[in-house]
Amino acid sequence: MEYSNSSNADPQSCLEIAMEVHRVVPPPHESTLRKLKTTLKETFFPDDPLRQFKGQPTRKKWVLAAQYIFPILQWGPDYSLKLLKSDVVSGLTIASLAIPQGISYAKLANLPPIVGLYSSFVPPLVYAVLGSSRDLAVGPVSIASLILGSMLTQEVSPVNDPVLFLQLAFTTTFFAGFFQASLGFLRLGFIIDFLSKATLIGFMAGAAIIVSLQQLKALLGITHFTKKMGLVPVLSSVFHNTNEWSWQTILMGSCFLVFLLVARHVSIKKPRLFWVSAGAPLVSVILSTLLVFAFKAQHHGISIIGKLQEGLNPPSWNMLQFHGSHLGLSIKTGIVTGIISLTEGIAVGRTFAALKNYKVDGNKEMMAIGLMNMVGSSTSCYVTTGAFSRSAVNHNAGAKTAVSNIVMSVTVMVTLLFLMPLFQYTPNVVLGAIIVSAVVGLIDIPAACQIWKIDKFDFIVMLCAFFGVIFISVQDGLAIAVGISIFKILLQITRPKTVMLGNIPGTDIFRDVHHYKESMKIPGFLILSIEAPINFANSTYLNERVLRWIEEYEAEDHKKQSSLRFVIFEMSAVSGIDTSGTSFFKELKKTVETKGAELVLVNPLGEVMEKLQKSDETGEFMRPDCLFLTVGEAVATLSATIKV
Amino acid sequence: MEYSNSSNADPQSCLEIAMEVHRVVPPPHESTLRKLKTTLKETFFPDDPLRQFKGQPTRKKWVLAAQYIFPILQWGPDYSLKLLKSDVVSGLTIASLAIPQGISYAKLANLPPIVGLYSSFVPPLVYAVLGSSRDLAVGPVSIASLILGSMLTQEVSPVNDPVLFLQLAFTTTFFAGFFQASLGFLRLGFIIDFLSKATLIGFMAGAAIIVSLQQLKALLGITHFTKKMGLVPVLSSVFHNTNEWSWQTILMGSCFLVFLLVARHVSIKKPRLFWVSAGAPLVSVILSTLLVFAFKAQHHGISIIGKLQEGLNPPSWNMLQFHGSHLGLSIKTGIVTGIISLTEGIAVGRTFAALKNYKVDGNKEMMAIGLMNMVGSSTSCYVTTGAFSRSAVNHNAGAKTAVSNIVMSVTVMVTLLFLMPLFQYTPNVVLGAIIVSAVVGLIDIPAACQIWKIDKFDFIVMLCAFFGVIFISVQDGLAIAVGISIFKILLQITRPKTVMLGNIPGTDIFRDVHHYKESMKIPGFLILSIEAPINFANSTYLNERVLRWIEEYEAEDHKKQSSLRFVIFEMSAVSGIDTSGTSFFKELKKTVETKGAELVLVNPLGEVMEKLQKSDETGEFMRPDCLFLTVGEAVATLSATIKV
Repeated sequence: MEYSNSSNADPQSCLEIAMEVHRVVPPPHESTLRKLKTTLKETFFPDDPLRQFKGQPTRKKWVLAAQYIFPILQWGPDYSLKLLKSDVVSGLTIASLAIPQGISYAKLANLPPIVGLYSSFVPPLVYAVLGSSRDLAVGPVSIASLILGSMLTQEVSPVNDPVLFLQLAFTTTFFAGFFQASLGFLRLGFIIDFLSKATLIGFMAGAAIIVSLQQLKALLGITHFTKKMGLVPVLSSVFHNTNEWSWQTILMGSCFLVFLLVARHVSIKKPRLFWVSAGAPLVSVILSTLLVFAFKAQHHGISIIGKLQEGLNPPSWNMLQFHGSHLGLSIKTGIVTGIISLTEGIAVGRTFAALKNYKVDGNKEMMAIGLMNMVGSSTSCYVTTGAFSRSAVNHNAGAKTAVSNIVMSVTVMVTLLFLMPLFQYTPNVVLGAIIVSAVVGLIDIPAACQIWKIDKFDFIVMLCAFFGVIFISVQDGLAIAVGISIFKILLQITRPKTVMLGNIPGTDIFRDVHHYKESMKIPGFLILSIEAPINFANSTYLNERVLRWIEEYEAEDHKKQSSLRFVIFEMSAVSGIDTSGTSFFKELKKTVETKGAELVLVNPLGEVMEKLQKSDETGEFMRPDCLFLTVGEAVATLSATIKV
Repeated sequence: MEYSNSSNADPQSCLEIAMEVHRVVPPPHESTLRKLKTTLKETFFPDDPLRQFKGQPTRKKWVLAAQYIFPILQWGPDYSLKLLKSDVVSGLTIASLAIPQGISYAKLANLPPIVGLYSSFVPPLVYAVLGSSRDLAVGPVSIASLILGSMLTQEVSPVNDPVLFLQLAFTTTFFAGFFQASLGFLRLGFIIDFLSKATLIGFMAGAAIIVSLQQLKALLGITHFTKKMGLVPVLSSVFHNTNEWSWQTILMGSCFLVFLLVARHVSIKKPRLFWVSAGAPLVSVILSTLLVFAFKAQHHGISIIGKLQEGLNPPSWNMLQFHGSHLGLSIKTGIVTGIISLTEGIAVGRTFAALKNYKVDGNKEMMAIGLMNMVGSSTSCYVTTGAFSRSAVNHNAGAKTAVSNIVMSVTVMVTLLFLMPLFQYTPNVVLGAIIVSAVVGLIDIPAACQIWKIDKFDFIVMLCAFFGVIFISVQDGLAIAVGISIFKILLQITRPKTVMLGNIPGTDIFRDVHHYKESMKIPGFLILSIEAPINFANSTYLNERVLRWIEEYEAEDHKKQSSLRFVIFEMSAVSGIDTSGTSFFKELKKTVETKGAELVLVNPLGEVMEKLQKSDETGEFMRPDCLFLTVGEAVATLSATIKV
């Protein structure tokens, strides 16, 4: 109290004090409009995509713009025979994977097998022109197929009403593409960031198990199988139909499953032998088809695909349905499959771009994938994206550019035109084995262990996603995990950390007294650091917490006989403030003063300082004896005042 | 590059370097369980309510516990005649306000007027025993009444089905109380913090306008009035029924409205004359009743309340409906009215507690208000809480303890027992005028201006709440405003600020180069400060943003010919990290190293350091030459290495 009296009596003295130390200055003035512009730019254009256009002549700008929209124009002119050789090898490799997987995944989505091949023909061509990743292998993927199939089956039966089901699948694909392209166009790509790595690992593992369970139908040769997806109904369906199990199917399935898993294992151990796992599915299809054909196994309990029509993708824009009672379902399914396939595509693109040290523009990729699906929806394709497993094979096989997608596409085209009759005798059990061996790779146990080690809460989120997918449903499991992740962020905001700082002896550094045991409290000073923006969600809490700090100080203080003189707030970590935050400081100032102490702020950042200044009619916060640039300077200056 | 070679060649040297400066040490080890305990304690018990029990003898603990649950035991024993005198004066004053307001607000909720008086009798008694605020005047409030009435009217007509409507109102009150008590019991009181001050100001102003518009029915004497709440339907209803306007009603209404508003204005200007505005409603009721009685005005177009039954609250627990088709509506309405009335009650309690320098425990208050409503729901009361206006009158009238609530309650009891017939001739138009004059105070234009001055975004939130309430609906307006507030917090997390630091000449202080114009960049160093926890929602953005910083540095650098050697991250403001955040640092380290530079971390906080350490098998991040306690020390030490 003497201190504040003396400083009131002699205003000169506090100016002198302020001169000795480094002044805290308000940030340079900026108009509201300019601040808004900066904020919008940072929010929507953090990568500053127009940077390269700056200071270029107009003609060059046009070229750059064309290259920006069609990345093929960037690398196309420099394309060489050497690159082509690599791309042909990798293109053929992924085609040998894409054909059996295409057929299998279409069955997973309850669609005719040929739609899977259609989807491996058109979308890769579109992506080759628009996409900026050099390693992405485009085509249908297991999880998006599963979700599309399961969500649409809720309202329409693919068996009783196959045409309507197909129409809804194409409409869903259109909405998925439209949603993806819009996210990219509106620069809202950050929405997919809300699917954290932990969520995805749990989700993928859960989905892999759900997908594998569905394959028990094909692997055991069961004809009456549940339409539900959950763990419980599927297992009960399996064990209530033991009379339908077919030993021939089980034998064949087990043999090929073991073969595929061994091939996978070999390629994981020796990446040079990538072609072992890449070729295994096609080899399995050919071998099993020959076996069935030779032994007429279709008459001995082994179900086969049956006759497939020849020919390229028929147009399907007339099948899109933008009205009717199922529109809501199509949109919902489109958004869920769109976001899931986008997450996979972008993550794959980024992973390989980082490996080869080039950049993939997230928002541009979203537009490319979105347009690819929109085009796909009018050419009899369903949702496609860049698949993890196939892109890895593509990368290992030495793909250099998107030409490998074109090679794959042409191979699929040849298959569609001439080879379709050959698949007539392919047994469904082998397709099931191919799916299981593909999705096994989605269960990433080492990553789960790593998450457990680093962050227990992330592990809980992962488990929620996993069990949610297995026991509730694919989309609900995902929603629960995302909800919990966001709840955690909000909780962190609601309960920001406040720590007490102490002086590290022999320096003017102040650090957390709990973390740095050697740091010492300064008698008469309570130095607190707040580590979050202060806003409506936490100002009440902070008020209570700070009062508790003060009361605890006073309780200790009772023994030490040195009364509290200054409460110093280290504000370096307070990155923002709102009107509730400014009220918090006003109230706190009053409370601290009733305790006979003074509130001192250290290093408020630009925006925080500006708002405190505006909320503060009396200029109380901005008094130079209440505002310092470092804790060290504040303590040094204010200790001197106590002695006076 | 030479630097990292030399340190590899001579590991001794980097140890020496580390010895010169202050070591960054990992925080003291804590088990997961202990950390969980601390986190839970900070989240749910920030005020540490059990602190006072520590170290007390068992008997004392029991006394303290009883006092904790029933605050009346705290102040009751010291109660004196002097305090009683103050409390009687203030109790009678608020009773004179509570009786007309009770009748009016019950009509606002489409309930029989007598329910408003019932609600001013039992709940204040319950609160007096359980509540910890000394100034709260308990009773029905305008906004909760409006919401309850409008939400229930959506499904049940109060005119055609009054008994069911009453049953639903009591059931809603029960759920509101149950929800409030649960929030308190589960220590989830922070949920009401999500209604920020800006949201509340916009919401209150919008609700005041909606409430006033509803009074046009009574003020203009219209008989066929819309059942909707929005601005547009009400105004259209008013101007389509001009033939029903009654000049006698309008004349009487205007006179009393002017009288009430003038009385309000007098009390605002001179708080000593609080009794002018406090007594005005009762005076209006008495005067207008006498006028109607004298002139038989009910036969001249002025509608009156009509016969009211005498007697105390009948029990109503048999009217609570926990099944049936309207259960969902009751629960929903209960949650909305519960949260709104809780917000008002807690805010009022805190405001007056701060004025008189005592503490109100938020969670305990919630339980008190919740229990009060649960008891109320079985004694014919509807939702009640502490009202802003009445508590202010209570405070100004000199209330010292909750006894003023008991005095008010007894006065209301006397009224219920003996005075009800006197209200038979009270005209509805005066009740309308009383409501309008009460809710006018909810429109706080100076606060809105202040918000505009300090924070433009908060202002937008406020406008959303305001226009949402006026044009859409009370509950949707509120939901939109809360949604936008949370979206803003999430956006802040998704796009954390990164700033470049420079050295303030003549010191070892490093600050934002944009804010402190005199600060200088150090050649060869890029010093960045991240001002948010790093998690899944922002790690992708941060990666892009940091790359842009590096590229911008290199572009500048091209001119300066001093290549980038160290990227220093000031981590003091990074309050938390998750698995995505640790991956971000791992990737960033690689990227920085491919650019020929070194990643250096400064002052990572306890939790962040621990997780980085766990995620880092090779010990790369924890090397003493990559980890410093202050930026100044890092730059000093590393500059020396460059010269070597």
